[in-house]
Amino acid sequence: MLPVLRTPYLLFLGDTPSATDAKTAIGIAYWRRELCRGQFRLPGCAADTGLPDLSLEQAKKLGVRSLIIGVAPMGGAFQPHWIESLRQAARLGLDIVSGLHTRLGAIPGLAQLTAAHGARLIDVRVPPADLTVATGAKRSGRRLITVGTDCAVGKKYTALAIDRCLRERGRKSSFRATGQTGIMIDGSGIPIDAVVCDFVAGAAERLSPANDVDHWDIVEGQGSLFHPSYAGVTLGLLHGTQPDALVLCHDLARTTIDGLADYPIPSLTVCIERYVEAARLTNSNVRCIGIAVNASAMSEADFSRERARIEAETGLPCADPIRDGVDRFITALDAAFDTATAK
Amino acid sequence: MLPVLRTPYLLFLGDTPSATDAKTAIGIAYWRRELCRGQFRLPGCAADTGLPDLSLEQAKKLGVRSLIIGVAPMGGAFQPHWIESLRQAARLGLDIVSGLHTRLGAIPGLAQLTAAHGARLIDVRVPPADLTVATGAKRSGRRLITVGTDCAVGKKYTALAIDRCLRERGRKSSFRATGQTGIMIDGSGIPIDAVVCDFVAGAAERLSPANDVDHWDIVEGQGSLFHPSYAGVTLGLLHGTQPDALVLCHDLARTTIDGLADYPIPSLTVCIERYVEAARLTNSNVRCIGIAVNASAMSEADFSRERARIEAETGLPCADPIRDGVDRFITALDAAFDTATAK
Repeated sequence: MLPVLRTPYLLFLGDTPSATDAKTAIGIAYWRRELCRGQFRLPGCAADTGLPDLSLEQAKKLGVRSLIIGVAPMGGAFQPHWIESLRQAARLGLDIVSGLHTRLGAIPGLAQLTAAHGARLIDVRVPPADLTVATGAKRSGRRLITVGTDCAVGKKYTALAIDRCLRERGRKSSFRATGQTGIMIDGSGIPIDAVVCDFVAGAAERLSPANDVDHWDIVEGQGSLFHPSYAGVTLGLLHGTQPDALVLCHDLARTTIDGLADYPIPSLTVCIERYVEAARLTNSNVRCIGIAVNASAMSEADFSRERARIEAETGLPCADPIRDGVDRFITALDAAFDTATAK
Repeated sequence: MLPVLRTPYLLFLGDTPSATDAKTAIGIAYWRRELCRGQFRLPGCAADTGLPDLSLEQAKKLGVRSLIIGVAPMGGAFQPHWIESLRQAARLGLDIVSGLHTRLGAIPGLAQLTAAHGARLIDVRVPPADLTVATGAKRSGRRLITVGTDCAVGKKYTALAIDRCLRERGRKSSFRATGQTGIMIDGSGIPIDAVVCDFVAGAAERLSPANDVDHWDIVEGQGSLFHPSYAGVTLGLLHGTQPDALVLCHDLARTTIDGLADYPIPSLTVCIERYVEAARLTNSNVRCIGIAVNASAMSEADFSRERARIEAETGLPCADPIRDGVDRFITALDAAFDTATAK
């Protein structure tokens, strides 16, 4: 398994001119604010997580253990003028955590400097070296996975929201991250898209291991069964997860796969059928319990009509997790699996 | 793409006590005998490809360019007492080609010795470093892929036999290898199971590129949609191939996935439906044109009855490629795609 990130965090935003580039930092500040002491910005930075601005030295005094690179510039490489800040963090003994394409170890001297000060370089894009082939063996505990009609339709957000909602109700739940942003938010996980394909289902088994019978793993899905580039990743993750429950995620503004106009998104009913059919291989009792939509482009009136139409079509609760929250999915989950009373 | 292997070959069998361990060498000698000058065996070797026994020096004089490690001992590591033979091959300027787990470069000094004599070390398990995500874009040429009800049900053999049969009829055809044995037989290919999962469909696109409209790529399938460990690999390869035609491969002796008694193999009709449904994502005109079975455990009378039953169930020709050949698949292919007249 990946090393678990040491908390608390200082979020590095560099001098990014774009708030969009800082979505990782913003995600961490939103979902795990209690783990963050502040943000570290260079002059000219246009992004803001709302956390206090701290120098590296101030952060160290406040007990910070990890500097998280929370910004992804175009191209995914480190900016040369960031590097002195990273060196200073290393000298202060902070772990440095990155999800960028360029490996931290490729920055000359940084690994030695970090090691000399008892800290670690952690590239969350690098999967564990000891992954194995899936066994397909049944395991205890409950698992939900968010699946998508396409990539980038809210699978991570929905999973984080369901996990938070369950924990707020005092239930046993763990978010299981499968992408770099999710891993940096949660502090652990496996970057599924970087795993050698023979081991994808095995990585999913390791990510959501046997657990208490009333514990839910809420797994961040990847890709889409309907995406010609990534469906194999999606399927391997689905099979290894052995999910009890699926939540289908969909962007209401899309009718075709993003960037691939020749690939129409099937109806939600067909999407559900195909996901359930595929997931049945490793869990014959799997069911879809809700539809999470991104309705950000819609007026409230239009969304209201569309939500009603989707619920009539699928017979399942539909919600935009950002506008509506995810309580209705929890209700549906408990109704389907009778797990609310098991705790 | 992988380096294309230099021919002709000398097949290295070591001192294996088991003919089964030498299945790669036996496969190369069977499918590409014209490329082989001989076999190299150490004292005690129990395997035999039927090729002339040659010393390394004799092979060099006969123009051999590559020493192919055609034996896979339990554990997939090089035997220490083989290494002096590999060093001698390197001194003679022969490329050394291996599909074993242990990398050739891990043998101390071998890389330098090979380079000093103008030869190469080729690990066919290592995929190209420059693979990319699939585009999903349509391309010219025809493609057939062998798909399985399970792993190890004859997908490679069937693909090689169909390719050979097409070429014997003067048709344009290329076998496209996706596993180490197939790559060593054909001299090129991509080891799909070692590819990072995000790139599997992209690797399949590169493996079977755009071609003449009357050219068939016959792609070696991997894994099975019904195998809980490997279905993601199977699906990514299927999507990237954009197949026009499928041949479903099945071992008549199996009712469950090999080694996984909890995973029953669905009926052939369901298997065909599921493969066609999955493949339609990238080629809406795909169809299954035949069932290739391994009937090695059956008497001729039993097989005859079973073949008739399968043909009645599926409406497709059924043949054991070893017992029956694959002519009926070619007939079905031509009937379905009218490609016989296109050449």
